[in-house]
Amino acid sequence: MTITVYELDGIGDVRFSPFCWRTLLALKHKGFDDFERVPVSFRDRSPIAFSNQERIPVLVDGDHWVNDSWDIACYLEDAYPDRPSLFGGDMARAEARFINAWTQQIQNPGLINIILWDAFMAVGPADRDWWREDREKRFGKIEAYRQGKEEKLGPWRQSLEPLRTTLRAQPYLGGEAPAYADYIVFGTFLFARFVNRYDVIEPADPIRDWCERLLDLFGGYTRSAPILEAG
Amino acid sequence: MTITVYELDGIGDVRFSPFCWRTLLALKHKGFDDFERVPVSFRDRSPIAFSNQERIPVLVDGDHWVNDSWDIACYLEDAYPDRPSLFGGDMARAEARFINAWTQQIQNPGLINIILWDAFMAVGPADRDWWREDREKRFGKIEAYRQGKEEKLGPWRQSLEPLRTTLRAQPYLGGEAPAYADYIVFGTFLFARFVNRYDVIEPADPIRDWCERLLDLFGGYTRSAPILEAG
Repeated sequence: MTITVYELDGIGDVRFSPFCWRTLLALKHKGFDDFERVPVSFRDRSPIAFSNQERIPVLVDGDHWVNDSWDIACYLEDAYPDRPSLFGGDMARAEARFINAWTQQIQNPGLINIILWDAFMAVGPADRDWWREDREKRFGKIEAYRQGKEEKLGPWRQSLEPLRTTLRAQPYLGGEAPAYADYIVFGTFLFARFVNRYDVIEPADPIRDWCERLLDLFGGYTRSAPILEAG
Repeated sequence: MTITVYELDGIGDVRFSPFCWRTLLALKHKGFDDFERVPVSFRDRSPIAFSNQERIPVLVDGDHWVNDSWDIACYLEDAYPDRPSLFGGDMARAEARFINAWTQQIQNPGLINIILWDAFMAVGPADRDWWREDREKRFGKIEAYRQGKEEKLGPWRQSLEPLRTTLRAQPYLGGEAPAYADYIVFGTFLFARFVNRYDVIEPADPIRDWCERLLDLFGGYTRSAPILEAG
């Protein structure tokens, strides 16, 4: 049985989608190593036409497909109960939903507000018109995000305090070992890293230490992934 | 073996401490019904002098005592593993820490900013000088909180969005049934309820429906507790 992940592609093989990284890390956590990664461009989603929807990532497992990173994690957990658990039980899965919602509503939008322009630079040239039009519907003119990044950093870092406090008490959100909840939140920091804005996390921040531990996981799987070149 | 909880007392037997309620609900969840509740005044903590510290709640179980609501929950979970689980496993316990930190840093301070004056009204007359002095060290003049409550409500309700989103997807933070994570967050809404400010949660809010379900738990244990009289 081959598993395939359709994921968003950027310039120079930089893949920065936090949602795709959640899925890739969920697969690694479950012990899958031989899955296939298929890059899909932002503007042309024909490779996932079979799914009759446009959201990425899409995971295909044999004759079954799933989209939405949360649903993919749940699918993997339920379809492969004998492999290492992503959630560690029903209560933990339920609580991970809260962490998922926090990331979605606090961590991720706050970061996008800081690095939207940097993200744009990581989009392939052929996709830029599409990306601009799509993102400007939600965020307004992209050019407005070229300035004022520094002033937004402080409040965003402050908003991460619940995460910081938790990581002062234990090495991972999942406790002594990483859980899917870790990958949810880490995915957003990976987004920053891949568009060359890892500096949004201060070196002395316990969050940074946690990111470093996660970058080492699975033989440095995320650490070795391509980063947008500076400039 | 008798369990005793030392908890903070208010006017007319109104007990509004969110931390004490977490402990009471943890005990009920674990199936304890015959524990003793000992009210302690804010100004005079001599009843817990045996613990050589001043923080409340304190739980005494036989010859063992524990303080700090989180540590008490962990103690109960570990000391009584055969009773209904508060955490549902190590990963869930670890994730509950994040929810604990969120409550501590977002939900609770935001609420205090709105209802500090109402809380002061729920403090017994003999404790008011002590309470004023203690709280004013942290929050400034209490009188400043008599006005402007309405304007603070909107941003605070907005800050609860991760909770709201989670409760749209499932009946409890713990999933299909309540977990200690629910009691952590619910404790703060109980605080509002007992000082007669349950109206901080809008009737149409999914958070309100969830509170109503929790108020019904354990034979309406929290629903039947005394509320500060209006005026």
